[in-house]
Amino acid sequence: MISVGIVGATGYTGVELLRLLSAHEGVDVKVVTSNSEKGKTVTDVFPSLRSTIDLIFVEHESEQLNSCDLIFFATPHAIAMNYVPKLLEHDCKIIDLSADFRIKDVGIWEKWYQVKHVCPELLQTAVYGLPELNRAEIKRASLIANPGCYPTAITLALLPALKQGLINPQDIIADAKSGVSGAGRKAALASQFSEVAESFKAYSASGHRHLPEIIQSLNLVQQNNETNLSFIPHLVPMNRGMFATIYVKPTDQNTVLQKHYVDFYADEPFVDVMPERAHPDTRSVKGSNTCRIAIHPGESESQPTVILSVIDNLVKGAAGQAIQNMNLMFGLDEGTALSASGLIP
Amino acid sequence: MISVGIVGATGYTGVELLRLLSAHEGVDVKVVTSNSEKGKTVTDVFPSLRSTIDLIFVEHESEQLNSCDLIFFATPHAIAMNYVPKLLEHDCKIIDLSADFRIKDVGIWEKWYQVKHVCPELLQTAVYGLPELNRAEIKRASLIANPGCYPTAITLALLPALKQGLINPQDIIADAKSGVSGAGRKAALASQFSEVAESFKAYSASGHRHLPEIIQSLNLVQQNNETNLSFIPHLVPMNRGMFATIYVKPTDQNTVLQKHYVDFYADEPFVDVMPERAHPDTRSVKGSNTCRIAIHPGESESQPTVILSVIDNLVKGAAGQAIQNMNLMFGLDEGTALSASGLIP
Amino acid sequence: MISVGIVGATGYTGVELLRLLSAHEGVDVKVVTSNSEKGKTVTDVFPSLRSTIDLIFVEHESEQLNSCDLIFFATPHAIAMNYVPKLLEHDCKIIDLSADFRIKDVGIWEKWYQVKHVCPELLQTAVYGLPELNRAEIKRASLIANPGCYPTAITLALLPALKQGLINPQDIIADAKSGVSGAGRKAALASQFSEVAESFKAYSASGHRHLPEIIQSLNLVQQNNETNLSFIPHLVPMNRGMFATIYVKPTDQNTVLQKHYVDFYADEPFVDVMPERAHPDTRSVKGSNTCRIAIHPGESESQPTVILSVIDNLVKGAAGQAIQNMNLMFGLDEGTALSASGLIP
Amino acid sequence: MISVGIVGATGYTGVELLRLLSAHEGVDVKVVTSNSEKGKTVTDVFPSLRSTIDLIFVEHESEQLNSCDLIFFATPHAIAMNYVPKLLEHDCKIIDLSADFRIKDVGIWEKWYQVKHVCPELLQTAVYGLPELNRAEIKRASLIANPGCYPTAITLALLPALKQGLINPQDIIADAKSGVSGAGRKAALASQFSEVAESFKAYSASGHRHLPEIIQSLNLVQQNNETNLSFIPHLVPMNRGMFATIYVKPTDQNTVLQKHYVDFYADEPFVDVMPERAHPDTRSVKGSNTCRIAIHPGESESQPTVILSVIDNLVKGAAGQAIQNMNLMFGLDEGTALSASGLIP
Repeated sequence: MISVGIVGATGYTGVELLRLLSAHEGVDVKVVTSNSEKGKTVTDVFPSLRSTIDLIFVEHESEQLNSCDLIFFATPHAIAMNYVPKLLEHDCKIIDLSADFRIKDVGIWEKWYQVKHVCPELLQTAVYGLPELNRAEIKRASLIANPGCYPTAITLALLPALKQGLINPQDIIADAKSGVSGAGRKAALASQFSEVAESFKAYSASGHRHLPEIIQSLNLVQQNNETNLSFIPHLVPMNRGMFATIYVKPTDQNTVLQKHYVDFYADEPFVDVMPERAHPDTRSVKGSNTCRIAIHPGESESQPTVILSVIDNLVKGAAGQAIQNMNLMFGLDEGTALSASGLIP
Repeated sequence: MISVGIVGATGYTGVELLRLLSAHEGVDVKVVTSNSEKGKTVTDVFPSLRSTIDLIFVEHESEQLNSCDLIFFATPHAIAMNYVPKLLEHDCKIIDLSADFRIKDVGIWEKWYQVKHVCPELLQTAVYGLPELNRAEIKRASLIANPGCYPTAITLALLPALKQGLINPQDIIADAKSGVSGAGRKAALASQFSEVAESFKAYSASGHRHLPEIIQSLNLVQQNNETNLSFIPHLVPMNRGMFATIYVKPTDQNTVLQKHYVDFYADEPFVDVMPERAHPDTRSVKGSNTCRIAIHPGESESQPTVILSVIDNLVKGAAGQAIQNMNLMFGLDEGTALSASGLIP
Repeated sequence: MISVGIVGATGYTGVELLRLLSAHEGVDVKVVTSNSEKGKTVTDVFPSLRSTIDLIFVEHESEQLNSCDLIFFATPHAIAMNYVPKLLEHDCKIIDLSADFRIKDVGIWEKWYQVKHVCPELLQTAVYGLPELNRAEIKRASLIANPGCYPTAITLALLPALKQGLINPQDIIADAKSGVSGAGRKAALASQFSEVAESFKAYSASGHRHLPEIIQSLNLVQQNNETNLSFIPHLVPMNRGMFATIYVKPTDQNTVLQKHYVDFYADEPFVDVMPERAHPDTRSVKGSNTCRIAIHPGESESQPTVILSVIDNLVKGAAGQAIQNMNLMFGLDEGTALSASGLIP
Repeated sequence: MISVGIVGATGYTGVELLRLLSAHEGVDVKVVTSNSEKGKTVTDVFPSLRSTIDLIFVEHESEQLNSCDLIFFATPHAIAMNYVPKLLEHDCKIIDLSADFRIKDVGIWEKWYQVKHVCPELLQTAVYGLPELNRAEIKRASLIANPGCYPTAITLALLPALKQGLINPQDIIADAKSGVSGAGRKAALASQFSEVAESFKAYSASGHRHLPEIIQSLNLVQQNNETNLSFIPHLVPMNRGMFATIYVKPTDQNTVLQKHYVDFYADEPFVDVMPERAHPDTRSVKGSNTCRIAIHPGESESQPTVILSVIDNLVKGAAGQAIQNMNLMFGLDEGTALSASGLIP
C-alpha cells in the first residue's frame, strides 16, 4: 500500500487526484494540505467525495508529509520548489503537477515564470513525466515533473512524426483550445461564468508559458533542436477538454503518417490513433486518461497535413498522467485506476 | 459471469450501461441491439468506448438475446413489451429501463402513454426497481421495471416522511429540473443545442408521464392512498443532472425530519442525507449512483419544509439503478461497479 | 437631452445601461464612475462598446456628477446611500439599482443587509420603481429604488391576483431560477465557470435578501398585510434569464385567472400575458424589457394553480426597468430605447 | 417604405431578419413563408416576437411575394434557385442568404453542393454581397448572393493584406470556430444539446463547402489567382459567434500590417481594427453587425503573423449583412437598424 500526500488538494487537479485515487486499491491517501482551507474536511469543500474520503486539510508545512511514500503537488507554480528538497531528504518520492521542474534551463524557466528558482540543481534530476517519451526514466525517478496539458496534447501528436523525421520541424502550427478548468479553481474575474459562457477567444496569443515546455520536448527527439512552432491557445466555454489542431508539412508527400502513428503507438495503453480522417471530440475522453489522435492528410501537395489531438486536460493533461507516473514509479500495472471510458454525454 | 444483452444500446441510457458495465468484472456484455445502427460497431457510434467494447449492433429481433442471462431494455416506451414475454420464456431475466412495466393499473398506463399494452398480465409480476423501497422483491424478480428519473429523485426524497406519516400527503409540491439528456438521444428540434442553451423553461406543466408513477409509489407507502402532488418539470441547459425542490407540510411542527431521514437511510449505500440546511448541487453526483438529500425546515410554523434531492438522471435515474438491481438479482454486492464519485467539475 | 451619470458602470447592470442608453436619442451619458477602473476608457473594459461610447471612468466622488440631470447607481448595496443625499441637494434625480432604498422599514433593511443605513429618512421619500405598481408616483419622484430581479418577476406574476383577492395570500410558493449574471461581475469562487457550468442548485434556501422586498410589495396591494410566501432561489448555468414557478391557491375554484390577468395588463407595454397553459422560456425575453406570464390552472380542485413568469434579469430585472423609470420621470414615451425583441437563439 | 418578403422565415437567419427588420423604420415586412409551418402565426413559432410581428406563414409558392420590393431567401441551399428567376421578372429585388448564387463557376458549385443548378445564367448577374469588397456593385444589383459566415470572417481578415500584396497568398491557414446556430434550425442528431455541450471538435476537416467561396473572393483581389488556403472549421458549444485564427506569412518582415489594416478599414462602419495584439472575444459582437479584427505579428522572422477575426455568425455572417446590403440597394443609410452593440454578457 502506497501512502500518499497531496499538497494543494483544493484545486481541480487536486480533487481529480482524490477522485481517481479513491478507486486505486494500492493507494492510501494519508495527508491532504491546503493553506486556505486547513481545518475543514475534504467533503466540506467537495461534497462529491462524501462517504469516499474522510480527511481534514492540514497546512502545506505539516510534518505528516514526511512519512508519505509519495507526494503529489497540485499547487500553482513556484510553490512546490520550496518544499521538494526537504521532502526528498525524507525519502519521499515526488510528482509535481505544477511547472516548477519541467524546464531544464533555469534561465528560460525564470524568464517565463518571472520568479527566481530556489532549487535549480533539481532541474537536472527531475524526470519529465510523459510516459510515451520517458517511460524507463520515470520508473527510476524520485522527482517527476508532470507535463502541462497543452504540452501533453501537442507533444503526443507530434512525437512519431518528429522522431522519425517525417515532417518539417521548422513549420508547425498548433492551434489549441482548452476548457475553462485549465484556468484553475480560484476567484478570478476572467474565468467567471458570465465572462466565459457563450463566448470564445484566443488568449496569450503573444506567448504562453507552455511554449518553452513544448519546444524542449520536441527538440529532444530530433537531431538538431530546430523546432519552430507557432502556438495559440483559446478558451472554450466548457469545463473539461483540450483540443489541438496541428498543421504540419510532411518532408515527403508520399509518406503515410497514419501507418507510422499506428505502429508507433501500438503498445501504448493511453494513446488511441483513430482511423485516418476521423473527427475526435473532447467528450470522447471526458474523465478518461486517453489521448485520441486523428490524421488528415492534405488534399494536395501544397496543403499541410492536419493532426487532431484530444485529451481531458484534468486527466491525461494532469491528474491521470500523474497517477500513470506513480504506477510506473512503484512497479504497478501502468493503467491501475485509469481504465474509465469517457463520460457520454 | 453474467451474460448480458442490451436492447436499444444507442441511446444515452444504453451508452451509460455500456460504460458502467465495462468496469463490472462479473458481467460479459454479449449482445447489443439497435434497429437503426445494426451492422455498425459500438465504437463507430461511441468512440468513447474504443478499446473497451468490441461488439457489433444486431437487430432487436436477434435470437442471440435468448441465451443471455439478463437483458436490459434501454428503448423508448412501447417497445420492450413486444419482446419481453418471449424472452422470459427463454429464462432470461429482464430489466426494462423504459416505462412499459412501471404502472400496475393498465388503464392508467394506457391513458398516459396513448398505446395499447400488449402484455398487461406482466404488470403484476413486474417488480418496481427502487431498491430503497423493494429490495427483497427485487432479489427474487425476473422482470424489473426500472424507475424513471423524476420518480427516483422525488420518491427517495419523500419516502421516510410519508412512510412514517410525518407530512401531509395531500399538500406536496415537487418543482423538478432536469438536464437535457433526459430527452433522449434522437433528432428532435426541441432539444437542439440552440433551442435549449442559454434558456430555461417549464414543460408539460399540465401533466407529465412520470406523475402517475410517482403517485403510485407514494400511495403505496401510506395507509390511505391519498397523495396529492403537484409536479412541474423544467429543462436546464446542462447534459446531466436532476434536481427536485419539494415543498411539504409537516404534520407536527416539532418533528425534526432530519433525524428521521438520517436513521431511515443509515444503511443505504446510495442515499446520502446531507447535514440540515445543506445545498446539494447536481454536479456532486455527476456520473455517480448517489442520491443526495438535504432538508430545510420552514422558518416559521406556517412555512413549508423544503426537501432538496439530486441525482444524475442517467445513473441513479436510469443505468446505475438498473445495475444496482442487476447486482441484487444475481446475488452480487449491491454496489459493484457503482462506486465512482461525482466528476468535478 | 437628459445628461446622465452612471455610478459603478463596470458591473453587468452598468454595461447593460450603457448598451441600452447608447441607443436612446434623448440621453447623453456624460459621466461614468468606477473606483477600481478609474482612468481606463469604457472600451478598455467593454470592447463591445467600441465606437459607441467614448468616456473615461472617473471615481465615484467626482464632482462631474453634480451637474447631471439623472444619476443611475449600478453599485452593490450600501454604496449609493453614501452619495445620494448630497446629489439630491444638487437637484440630480436618482435611480438606484441597488437595494439601498427598496425597503421602507429601516429595521428590516438593516437586519437583512447587515449594515447601518446612513440616510433612513430617504426611505420614505424613495419611490419603488415598479411602473406596473407605482407609475404615477414614479413620474413625480426624485429618488427611485429600482426593484430587484426576483421581486420584479414574482410581483408582476402575483399583482393581479392579490390586488383583486383571487388567491389565498397565505399559501404562496415561489420557486425561482436565475442565470449567473445575477451574481454580479466580480471575482468570486462560487460563480467561476467551472463551479457553475453543467450543474444546478438552490442557494440561500433559508432566506434570500429579496424576500422582504417581495413581501413588502405583495402586502401593499392587499387589505391585511398577510402575505405568507415561501421563496427558494436557484442558479441556472446560463448568463441571462430569470424564471419563477409560482404555486397559488385560488379563493374560488371557478375564477378564471387568465381573464383577470389579460384585463389587468391590457395596457401595459412590458407585460405579456400569454395564452393559458403556454410555456414561456427565458430566451424569449433575452435582451428585452418584457415580462411574460403564463397561467396553468390546477387539474383538479385540490391542485394549486401555477403561474410562470420570465424576465431578463439584467433588463426588466435591472437596467431596462431603470430606463423605463427614467422615461417616466422625464416625460418621455415610456418605451423609448426599450423596444428590442428577445435575441433568439 | 420597402415592402419585404422573407422566404424560409423559420430558421435562425429568418428569425434574426425578423428581429432586426422589426426595428427598421423604412421596411414593412409583408410576407413570410414556411412550407413546414404554413398557417401558423410567426409568434406561435417565435414567442420572442409577440407584439412585434403580426403575420401568418404562407407557402413559398405564394403569389404575395410577387408584389414585394425585396425578397430575402433564408432557406437551405438549392431552394432559392427555383424561385428567383420568376421573382426577378416581377421586378422583385433578391437577397439570397443561401449558397445558390455565391459561386461564379457552376461546375465548382455543383461539385460542392451535389445538385444541378437550375439557373446558372444568373451566377454572373448575381453580386457577391460583401460591402467591403463590392459596395458599388451592390448598390446597383437586383440579385445579391449574401456571403457565408466563415467567408465573411475570413475574407475581411485577409482583404487588406492580399489586396496590397503584403502576405504570401500560397501559405495561409484559417483555423475557424463556429457557434452551433450555424448548423441551422432543424432536427438533427449531430446538433442535439447533449451531443454538443461540454465538447469541442473539428468537422469537415477534409473539405467544407465554404472553402471555394473563400478562395473565389481571395483570388479576386490578387493579380494571379493563386490562393492556397487550409481551412478547418470547428464547433464551439455556444449559440452564436464565429472566430477565425488566421496564420499568414508577411512578404516583407518589416511591414506593419496593423497600419495598413487601420487605413484600409478607416471608413468602414462595420469593421473594427482593434489595437495591435488585442484579444477579441465573440461576445463583443453578439447580436451586432461588427467584425472585429486584431493582428499579432510573429515574435520572430520565422513565425507567422496571426490575424484574429470575430463576427456574430447570424448578424454580420448572415441577417445583418443582408440588411446592410438592402440598405445599400435602396439608397438608405448603410447602418440603418444595425447600430446595436454586442450583448454583454
